Amino acid sequence: MVIIAGSRRIRRTPFSDGVEAFGVKGYTVYNHMLLPTVFRSVEEDYHHLKSAVQVWDVAVERQVEIRGPDAARLMQMLTPRDLRAMQPGMCYYVPMVDETGGMLNDPVAVMIAEDRYWVSIADSDLLFWVKGLAYGLRLDVLVDEPDVSPLAIQGPKADELAARVFGDKVKDLKFFRFGRFDFMGQDMIVARSGYSKQGGFEVYVEGGKNGMPLWNALMEAGKDLDVHAGCPNVIERIEGGLLSYGNDMTRDNTPHEAGLGRFCSTETAIGCVGRDALLRVSKEGPVKQIRGLRIEGSVPPCDRAWPIMDADGQYQIGAVTSAAWSPDFETNVAIGMVRMTHWDPRTDVDVVTQAGVFPAVVQETFWI
Amino acid sequence: MVIIAGSRRIRRTPFSDGVEAFGVKGYTVYNHMLLPTVFRSVEEDYHHLKSAVQVWDVAVERQVEIRGPDAARLMQMLTPRDLRAMQPGMCYYVPMVDETGGMLNDPVAVMIAEDRYWVSIADSDLLFWVKGLAYGLRLDVLVDEPDVSPLAIQGPKADELAARVFGDKVKDLKFFRFGRFDFMGQDMIVARSGYSKQGGFEVYVEGGKNGMPLWNALMEAGKDLDVHAGCPNVIERIEGGLLSYGNDMTRDNTPHEAGLGRFCSTETAIGCVGRDALLRVSKEGPVKQIRGLRIEGSVPPCDRAWPIMDADGQYQIGAVTSAAWSPDFETNVAIGMVRMTHWDPRTDVDVVTQAGVFPAVVQETFWI
Repeated sequence: MVIIAGSRRIRRTPFSDGVEAFGVKGYTVYNHMLLPTVFRSVEEDYHHLKSAVQVWDVAVERQVEIRGPDAARLMQMLTPRDLRAMQPGMCYYVPMVDETGGMLNDPVAVMIAEDRYWVSIADSDLLFWVKGLAYGLRLDVLVDEPDVSPLAIQGPKADELAARVFGDKVKDLKFFRFGRFDFMGQDMIVARSGYSKQGGFEVYVEGGKNGMPLWNALMEAGKDLDVHAGCPNVIERIEGGLLSYGNDMTRDNTPHEAGLGRFCSTETAIGCVGRDALLRVSKEGPVKQIRGLRIEGSVPPCDRAWPIMDADGQYQIGAVTSAAWSPDFETNVAIGMVRMTHWDPRTDVDVVTQAGVFPAVVQETFWI
Repeated sequence: MVIIAGSRRIRRTPFSDGVEAFGVKGYTVYNHMLLPTVFRSVEEDYHHLKSAVQVWDVAVERQVEIRGPDAARLMQMLTPRDLRAMQPGMCYYVPMVDETGGMLNDPVAVMIAEDRYWVSIADSDLLFWVKGLAYGLRLDVLVDEPDVSPLAIQGPKADELAARVFGDKVKDLKFFRFGRFDFMGQDMIVARSGYSKQGGFEVYVEGGKNGMPLWNALMEAGKDLDVHAGCPNVIERIEGGLLSYGNDMTRDNTPHEAGLGRFCSTETAIGCVGRDALLRVSKEGPVKQIRGLRIEGSVPPCDRAWPIMDADGQYQIGAVTSAAWSPDFETNVAIGMVRMTHWDPRTDVDVVTQAGVFPAVVQETFWI
């Protein structure tokens, strides 16, 4: 383990002061910005997330704002998901692909108005792709990164905490819907969403200066709920099968390989980039796909792709890309891409880590 | 200081095993990949870089390969620098801008052939911009990230070390020219370039598996030259006025503001994106610009932009974006963007850090 060197290039967030006051112990870098990875310990954070409520600095989910007469047309170009039913107030999970069908990002699109979207991105400079397309196609849109920083409230007590700060009406929000709620005279967009399976909200904080007041208000209001600073938890997200762009899928993969075929409507998503490439995949299906895997033994930290070998150790038939010890399921939970020949549940395979080979079993589902 | 969490998303490099064997003590993340920042100590590394020779894992300088009949046309679209005189065998430092003249990257372009370029990038997903443009404009090019990882040899003894591994002819390379040299039967592109002012080379290693053999050969051949693993050194690069994209300039800045006006030929770089926006800037000149600054006192690590105030503390007239203590010049050397009203040499200003306000003086030149 080594330290991360500070520099302006690795941006702090509007909540960094709060995160540091809670004694953050580990960071990663995501969209050129600091993302906390551990506060007390990954396991302690995990148990706490599943039992109480946490406030997460997820400002790294930068927004790409698309605005103007061609905004809806450009949005549909960006994703194979059919957006015709999308309306203001809705969030859509939208895999985005290049002309070959390779994934560029898997953001959540937030439809602010008929001609205005925020695309809440995973870890890649999606802004560059969108700007390049808009310029090359001379679309009538503005594309920019606004001063918007999401703060997440996650955990079984998230509804209670959010209601104390934004009022009881926030509890009425349906999943992947958002509303506007007042916080100290500021209108804030609050969505029922977040990168955990424990439920909760994401607040799209406009204006960096509004970050710490909201952070502090949540911490103050949640004292008796055992609120604590938290962050996306690697154990919980693997259990829940929540994919991480850059870890579990990259530009090398189609959405179908990532198990996201249900978000692809290549027949009806007319105009989407990569449609030609994905049409065939959507008919034939992919030859490899994301699976949950249970790995036996004391595996090291998963800091690189681990080859998956067939049980004879002869052929590589996939790769594990995320793994962690799950205290609740008492096994190593993992996510990997597995070839069709070995992706059936209960298939025995071997996983080659930097610390040796470990037996593993392909799962029917994730741990949900 | 906190630790960085390992994950596949933060890519290891073909040289990571070598870097770890040398006891790397700090990393940063650059183009979704690990970049070492310190081995013995930043100051020890600095003295050693200036007196001996170092081998640097700069695989983070990912390549954007542009290939095909429209490659030269697309290259000229990407930069306001006039590329008409560029020929195979040459490297050009090419600021790249969007349609507003805002900097997207400041890579080194390597012209492999008339219809084939590698763009060796700073820290942003330039690939997405180039792919977006090529798609939107239906250009006849392939744009991809090849399996190429630069390894740098830097320091006053770099010529001697490179000659031992690649032969004496490598010494004949002129600055920003490259040639092909044999290493154990592999043809390798070696350029006289690198992110220091101490001289040296960058080897564009094709194929990850060829990384460690070259690393080991250099370390073995350089034993009596006191060769050591190194990395871009923050003190040395500030002294030399080497800018860092994301630190010293961002998409908010034009090349002119970054002091890179000499690389912009908006009159003749016909077809370049952002030309309209930059034409006016190139006539009038920018209203703020990069400067060297000397800061007095015990300044903290520069992990964020530090506002620069006028001597009365009334108005913000710029920001420091990189700073370090220089043992050789016995002062804090810094890089910042300063408004025209205060950018003259010997102007007294104040720098507001997270640990208080420090007096500073605008410099005439960097420390070279």
